[in-house]
Amino acid sequence: MSKSIFYHAGCPVCISAEHDIINLVGENNVEVVNIGEDRSRIQEAENAGVNSVPALVTPNGNALHINFGASMADVKG
Amino acid sequence: MSKSIFYHAGCPVCISAEHDIINLVGENNVEVVNIGEDRSRIQEAENAGVNSVPALVTPNGNALHINFGASMADVKG
Repeated sequence: MSKSIFYHAGCPVCISAEHDIINLVGENNVEVVNIGEDRSRIQEAENAGVNSVPALVTPNGNALHINFGASMADVKG
Repeated sequence: MSKSIFYHAGCPVCISAEHDIINLVGENNVEVVNIGEDRSRIQEAENAGVNSVPALVTPNGNALHINFGASMADVKG
């Protein structure tokens, strides 16, 4: 894949980080996924190494956890 | 300022994140500061809201803490 994926769950920390990441990386270079709403993608995020949101999975597959909004357990709970 | 500043302290988590951030943002758009070596800039990082490294301070002044390498207390200690 060539795009990064930004996973979030709609929390205020997430929204703030989303704006920063889009400004930095460019809107066309990042897919934004709200796993609070699109729960079918929670497993995909976990498989990518996402332990908390907001997180950015880079094109080379690294999970960068950014600040701290919510743990995956909180998102699933 | 128009550049982001990436603060790190040379730890493995920091170096990995540095590569990811440079790939994402572009080498010319980010200043990399090792506050483990350049200790005169620790205060500047703290003033920008950096609580742990690695962290990226965006052009609009937000501190994004990325994964977790070391607390500022560890860097100073």
